[in-house]
Amino acid sequence: MRKVSFSESQKRALQEAFRTVDVERSGTIETEHLPGLVGKLLRKDASNNNNNVVWQRRNSQNTLKNGPVNFTDFVKIMSETLAESNDWGSLKTDVEGYVGIDSIQDQIRKKALKRGFEFNIMVVGPSGLGKSTLVNSLFRAKVSRRACSTEDSQADAPPIPQSVQVKSVSHVIEESGVRLKLTVTDTPGFGDHINNENCWIPIIEYINEQYEKYLSEEISITRKKHIPDSRVHVCLYFVAPTGHNLKPLDIEVMKRLDKVCNVMPVISKADTLTIEERATFKNRIKEELKKHGVQTYPMKGVNEDADDAKINDVLRDQIPFAVVGSDKTHEIDGKKVLGRLTNWGLIEVENPKHCEFSHLRNMLIRTHMQDLKEVTDSIHYENFRRERLAAKQKFEKAEESRC
Amino acid sequence: MRKVSFSESQKRALQEAFRTVDVERSGTIETEHLPGLVGKLLRKDASNNNNNVVWQRRNSQNTLKNGPVNFTDFVKIMSETLAESNDWGSLKTDVEGYVGIDSIQDQIRKKALKRGFEFNIMVVGPSGLGKSTLVNSLFRAKVSRRACSTEDSQADAPPIPQSVQVKSVSHVIEESGVRLKLTVTDTPGFGDHINNENCWIPIIEYINEQYEKYLSEEISITRKKHIPDSRVHVCLYFVAPTGHNLKPLDIEVMKRLDKVCNVMPVISKADTLTIEERATFKNRIKEELKKHGVQTYPMKGVNEDADDAKINDVLRDQIPFAVVGSDKTHEIDGKKVLGRLTNWGLIEVENPKHCEFSHLRNMLIRTHMQDLKEVTDSIHYENFRRERLAAKQKFEKAEESRC
Repeated sequence: MRKVSFSESQKRALQEAFRTVDVERSGTIETEHLPGLVGKLLRKDASNNNNNVVWQRRNSQNTLKNGPVNFTDFVKIMSETLAESNDWGSLKTDVEGYVGIDSIQDQIRKKALKRGFEFNIMVVGPSGLGKSTLVNSLFRAKVSRRACSTEDSQADAPPIPQSVQVKSVSHVIEESGVRLKLTVTDTPGFGDHINNENCWIPIIEYINEQYEKYLSEEISITRKKHIPDSRVHVCLYFVAPTGHNLKPLDIEVMKRLDKVCNVMPVISKADTLTIEERATFKNRIKEELKKHGVQTYPMKGVNEDADDAKINDVLRDQIPFAVVGSDKTHEIDGKKVLGRLTNWGLIEVENPKHCEFSHLRNMLIRTHMQDLKEVTDSIHYENFRRERLAAKQKFEKAEESRC
Repeated sequence: MRKVSFSESQKRALQEAFRTVDVERSGTIETEHLPGLVGKLLRKDASNNNNNVVWQRRNSQNTLKNGPVNFTDFVKIMSETLAESNDWGSLKTDVEGYVGIDSIQDQIRKKALKRGFEFNIMVVGPSGLGKSTLVNSLFRAKVSRRACSTEDSQADAPPIPQSVQVKSVSHVIEESGVRLKLTVTDTPGFGDHINNENCWIPIIEYINEQYEKYLSEEISITRKKHIPDSRVHVCLYFVAPTGHNLKPLDIEVMKRLDKVCNVMPVISKADTLTIEERATFKNRIKEELKKHGVQTYPMKGVNEDADDAKINDVLRDQIPFAVVGSDKTHEIDGKKVLGRLTNWGLIEVENPKHCEFSHLRNMLIRTHMQDLKEVTDSIHYENFRRERLAAKQKFEKAEESRC
């Protein structure tokens, strides 16, 4: 276990802190005071568990018995806590004058910019719900597979395939010098048949195959400097704007998808719902998801600190977004807007008064893209990896005992 | 192998490009034209190997025979090349209107800021060369081990230990909201004995131990979300300002260090050299390093593109930096400067006319800190990992065949 050795001034700060609890100068403090004391020294909310990781571990391993803790033990615990933390609060060392540490941010930015970024999005839902159009609207480019296969694909709908297929198409799009390799995966044939039993299997398989590819590169002896990332970072699940309930298929699929990737349900073609219908439908979906234990992104307590949780709570309240997509622009007041023109009015895709498309885009691209990637990496991929390696280890042990 | 499927407009671009080479419409082009063609499509210098990785690999695996390549093969090669690249040049897809992809940079920055940064620096050299003072000057804080052990350590030099020790001390320093966990490792006793044979062994061992720790966390089934990084990102090797030659020990040690980490030689206490002596000494050191094949950081062609190479060539010319350290400030013209006051003048540490301390600091902290970390990760750590895992595999195979 790593340890940190303290300077004299740090030791004095520790001593002072210890004495604020040990008012009677008994030389020991009670274990229950530890979290508060650590929190105070690191200038963090004492209820924030992250700060007390070491304390908790020692507690659970019983290397730290309940009861009094003396100063030497306290210093040891602090040393281990600090070794695992980058936030030392009041124990940090002062810098006199400008050193230039902050330039690390720009160094990282420049390197990332040269490398480019990757984002992989999957759209799942029955045909006719505007999946391709929505993805094209989100990125304001023809990035969906259907938009690519033939030039005028919008006109003639493709035939429904016999079984569910999983098809990916990649594009590199660029904005302000930032290159993004975007892979859009769709699932033609999903939910389009008389019997849709097990139609989620090819989808789950595809997602796991990407984890498998990533894992096999990661553990190979001679590996690439940058592992190409084909893992699905978000799955947009398209709910039909029935105004009634989720279909049993929706629930069955989302229940399985949420175990392997970030799931974001969206109500598509929301222009068929009045504002009241939309609100009622959204609430009903939310209740059903909760009832069936479907975990949609952003998951509570996953990769979020107190600040993130505040932002995510607002989003969790708004999800599922009711959206409308369009690849046609119309002019109003001299401005070009994406929209759908009808005899009774123009629904503007990007107008938050008309639908929640802009909420979805803000979240997917402008505020949560990196978080989607991080959660995929640190939660979903790690789950896969852990299970996969544990199974491998078990198999190897069995082999060993056989011979 | 991943492949990319092309849109109609991309296919047309490929066809056009193909025809610029196949002027006679024979339907095939010669293999030798491939690199140029790929380079042109990706708007890159054709001599830049990165773009032709797939082509080269297929060539070396002989899946691509020398001779004519037809359009289908060409599309296949391009598809594989693009699958591994984020820079699609003229094949990228246009975005109409603002999407917000560029915000990914700020998303990454904010997440990194919350996490904090880590940097580990090692100082190697005989005692009395001002290692502690230099590190304190670099970070304008008391971050060296000696500055921490006792409050007035500057006054009384510690006794020389019986054998070489390796000691680390960590601090968290903060500037403009950027938290850096800085670990300074020094090696008391190095080069201080009558017989200094093998005195580098504990140092190399320490460096490898950090790789081993990182590796064992990386490959463990249940691993930490963020692996604590104790790997040595740079080793400052202190050369005594003799004005003569490198000592045999210097060469022996640097030759071994450069295999396991980024080595940056510095001429310390350079205020004992006149400007001419300094220039001569620097040139002589450079020649000797070259003669003995010592690879100092930044290594040519390692983790650098054409732009980086230009910047690094300038640095390679300046290295080793001749530096002076000080933790005392003096006032000149009302401004406080770090310096050393003598009867014949004040040597200002941060004045580039006086010494090359500011060059060293710029490079270490303001321009190359992230690169030092990346090279450590992608070159030195990967070397260790590859050898370690290959040895493990060999051992396991031997075990298997035994049973």
